Amino acid sequence: MPYRAPINEFSFIFENIVGFGDVASTPLFQDATHDVVTAILAEAGKLSEEKLAPVNRSGDEHHTVLENGVMRAAPGYGEAYQAIAEGGWVGIAARPESGGMGLPLTVASAVNDMMGAACLSLQLVPLLSMGQIEALEHHASDAIKELYLPKLTSGEWTGTMNLSEPQAGSDVGALATKAEPNGDGTFAITGQKIWISWGDADFAENICHLVLARLPDAPKGTKGISLFMVPKFLPDADGNPGERNDLRVVSIEGKMGLNGSPTCVMEYSGAKGWLVGPEGGGMAAMFTMMNNARLGVGVQGVSSAEGAYQHALAYAMERKQGRTPVEGPGTIIDHADVRRMLAESKCDIFAARCIALACAAAIDMGNATGDAAWKARAAFLTPIAKAFGTETGMRVSETGVQIFGGMGFVEETGAAQYYRDVRVTAIYEGTNGIQAMDLVARKLMDGGDAAYALLDEIEADAEKARATLPGLAEPVWQATETLRETTEWLVGQGDLQNRFAGAVPYLMGFARVLGGYYHLKAALAEGGEGTRSRLAKFYIDRLLPEHIGLLTHARQGAVDLYAITHDDLVA
Amino acid sequence: MPYRAPINEFSFIFENIVGFGDVASTPLFQDATHDVVTAILAEAGKLSEEKLAPVNRSGDEHHTVLENGVMRAAPGYGEAYQAIAEGGWVGIAARPESGGMGLPLTVASAVNDMMGAACLSLQLVPLLSMGQIEALEHHASDAIKELYLPKLTSGEWTGTMNLSEPQAGSDVGALATKAEPNGDGTFAITGQKIWISWGDADFAENICHLVLARLPDAPKGTKGISLFMVPKFLPDADGNPGERNDLRVVSIEGKMGLNGSPTCVMEYSGAKGWLVGPEGGGMAAMFTMMNNARLGVGVQGVSSAEGAYQHALAYAMERKQGRTPVEGPGTIIDHADVRRMLAESKCDIFAARCIALACAAAIDMGNATGDAAWKARAAFLTPIAKAFGTETGMRVSETGVQIFGGMGFVEETGAAQYYRDVRVTAIYEGTNGIQAMDLVARKLMDGGDAAYALLDEIEADAEKARATLPGLAEPVWQATETLRETTEWLVGQGDLQNRFAGAVPYLMGFARVLGGYYHLKAALAEGGEGTRSRLAKFYIDRLLPEHIGLLTHARQGAVDLYAITHDDLVA
Repeated sequence: MPYRAPINEFSFIFENIVGFGDVASTPLFQDATHDVVTAILAEAGKLSEEKLAPVNRSGDEHHTVLENGVMRAAPGYGEAYQAIAEGGWVGIAARPESGGMGLPLTVASAVNDMMGAACLSLQLVPLLSMGQIEALEHHASDAIKELYLPKLTSGEWTGTMNLSEPQAGSDVGALATKAEPNGDGTFAITGQKIWISWGDADFAENICHLVLARLPDAPKGTKGISLFMVPKFLPDADGNPGERNDLRVVSIEGKMGLNGSPTCVMEYSGAKGWLVGPEGGGMAAMFTMMNNARLGVGVQGVSSAEGAYQHALAYAMERKQGRTPVEGPGTIIDHADVRRMLAESKCDIFAARCIALACAAAIDMGNATGDAAWKARAAFLTPIAKAFGTETGMRVSETGVQIFGGMGFVEETGAAQYYRDVRVTAIYEGTNGIQAMDLVARKLMDGGDAAYALLDEIEADAEKARATLPGLAEPVWQATETLRETTEWLVGQGDLQNRFAGAVPYLMGFARVLGGYYHLKAALAEGGEGTRSRLAKFYIDRLLPEHIGLLTHARQGAVDLYAITHDDLVA
Repeated sequence: MPYRAPINEFSFIFENIVGFGDVASTPLFQDATHDVVTAILAEAGKLSEEKLAPVNRSGDEHHTVLENGVMRAAPGYGEAYQAIAEGGWVGIAARPESGGMGLPLTVASAVNDMMGAACLSLQLVPLLSMGQIEALEHHASDAIKELYLPKLTSGEWTGTMNLSEPQAGSDVGALATKAEPNGDGTFAITGQKIWISWGDADFAENICHLVLARLPDAPKGTKGISLFMVPKFLPDADGNPGERNDLRVVSIEGKMGLNGSPTCVMEYSGAKGWLVGPEGGGMAAMFTMMNNARLGVGVQGVSSAEGAYQHALAYAMERKQGRTPVEGPGTIIDHADVRRMLAESKCDIFAARCIALACAAAIDMGNATGDAAWKARAAFLTPIAKAFGTETGMRVSETGVQIFGGMGFVEETGAAQYYRDVRVTAIYEGTNGIQAMDLVARKLMDGGDAAYALLDEIEADAEKARATLPGLAEPVWQATETLRETTEWLVGQGDLQNRFAGAVPYLMGFARVLGGYYHLKAALAEGGEGTRSRLAKFYIDRLLPEHIGLLTHARQGAVDLYAITHDDLVA
């Protein structure tokens, strides 16, 4: 099924949901005019439809493989990547002085959404480079910036993140890779890293690895971690790839999906590296990269959902089976349960996409204004965008398989690929459980200020909407009150375990309510009549009520959970 | 991870939840004494642990393949199947006069649960044969019974079901395969059938295909369908496999999972077949087979969940990551969110297993007593057992992957196999959407009698439990009231589309409440203290509240759903 970029959806959300006008009014983003953004979205849509979507199946069918030490990207990936690079898409959100376009992350997220829906495995390449560019912009020395940023933004070189080690996954502080001073300002990096996406690629002139490692005598835990730039080829005097560095891909993982993107075990054998940021400042630098990467992965979830949804919708509009109850083409889209599945998917994609773009817009506003409230909003929304976006990717791709029936379980239709590919997004960049723990602990450390500010905003808008759209506004207001009470309960728990016990249900319940809010705004924007109002009614009547069960779960605390013993679970 | 058969769980559920004592008190099942059942469960557990579990990965790694017309089962499958056959497990529920053990379906379901958890792809072979045996027992002529049943119950020959054709999936009535009289009482079967599980196997001496086809001039739709026995080898005068019949496996599907079980496209080219049941009685006969097959597939969902759960639990008990908040081994089982995932899985497996076994017990009681109320109970529970069992399989195997983190996405750990294998169970034997439509239409055609009888029983038990376990009994009673109101609303809808629009949420909400009931009974059985009471509290406090959202969804009707246009879904 050809992918069709949902350009109008982005324009609508920019204008009516996430306040993109405010972003574009800041001096930092004054070049992001309506015309520019419209042109950018159209171009990215074209790239995704014409260059990326056609290679999506190739990654799954042929995989990217390690052959005699060379990482052979899946057929067609090289050309598709060149189209991304040549279009300047890697540098879309990078600063102009880095060689980028300096556009807001809101726009970059929409572009990532389209590229990811078209070909998730390949979209990971620019996504990783974007994260690396941002980390370097914030933390690297001028020398490193000057050398690496132009090559990264142009897409000639690509970037990777190297955090995990076999004993150090979610617990990054347990990592053991060593960095020893060479005496010339550089460091010798030694150790093994795992889960390195695109650790090598035959279409990139150089691969720039950002590696977390420990200096000699560094303290234990995260405080002793520093960040290093470790390129595959050491740049020569002219800044071109020179001598081969002492690092290599040892092996790639056999995965259930996303097989166009090689997941590498990397071996560093005294490879030469340069410190990025201060000694011991590795985690801080990595967090810059990780936060936006988390949003980026949430967007990947939304993209996968969009790709799977379009694919299933096309099938539902063409497949005949049984007698349908209404006038029409007699295809399965007119069976009530199929239409329910499609409507749920459509409504959830909208909710998840709005959450992700609201998060991006908050990041942009924080960067443009320096305002602490915007930064807090961005930080608060990031784990929700990541976890709900990827959860939506899983649910919608599962539904997509279901709509295809038996054909969904057969690989040739491609429905299964969405289901398998997206599964990792709920795991990498911090599992969804880790996101939820971040939300209820770190993101409520302000006593709930960021949360309450958001809830106040929803309730104020819902109150205004009561006069015109009471049937939609009232349930959203009520749900927000329940969410407020649950938030207050969590904030009141000094023992963090009481929060952690309900962290995931809380995050999911929060997302349900946010989704109701954005659907309400969408209905308001068209005066309560039309496509968006019908979808809003479906969501608010049928999906929003899920918040009750989720938030009830969220308030149960840890005592009864830990009362369940290991033996109880084994028995 | 070695599979460990949950023998005690079955014994507990038999004794305390589904009233197995009543089944064993009937004349029909008087041989199913406590000692016999205990011995049977122990033996089936041993078979599953020692013979089947060891070949589970083989089916995924090597697949069962079609080579030069021969279906080569995955390495180890042949030996494992022989162990099933030689143990008499295929005939466990078959009548003694068919060569079977004549045990209740409740016991057979527990056996299927264990075999399926150990190796789902292979367990499908006896499951299909069991369905065929039952169809023949009810509908075949004495000649066919005498010839085929001993071979099927002994496992020497295996059985398949042939319903679907490319244009006839959920809509079986659209099938076009022809059956023309040969003039000697036999028929020539011509046509193509798809989705035929185990359409051939190198470990079976003969394959017995039950094929739906149309006689010349048969009416359109399901009324014109007849059922035929079409064996791969025509039995000779001694009843041994003789001449090769004109049928063959054309190809097998490339699937996302369950690859130990070949899904075949079958071509019948005038193959010789014998009528089973009366002309035009094909659907009635097939329903005998399908109903129990639906329960069987629900049990497959539970098995997959059990396998995935045990696998993830073992990992959670051994994997160290981060500092855990309680005294203990310091493994991830002690992180709140991991424990939540495990507790949810454990509680849902219990709920789904109880529903499946309650359905089996009702079938047994219906068969043993002929009582219409038991038959109605069985019919009512069947779609719930199928859809909730398989949904639980999907959810728990997804959670299993999540507990493994990145390693869950890597195939070598085996977590992904459960996730991929179980996916088809929500589709085959009637998609879960079809199950839900059956529930709200056909199974409420009695004006809700069967539903209300069950709800009355729950409320009566909940009321009795109020004195001793108010914290558990009251929410179950309340939830049952909500379910009753929703059922009344559905029964009141003359336009079936209003029921279909909320069919899946209703089924899932019904299952949630039933789960609460069975957890309550479990807690009562141990006097409100102990493992089962702690799990019951978890389920009733944290998972049961989901019924509110689901049942709210179920009551929304079709008008707003169909107000959403095709264009709305495309936009």
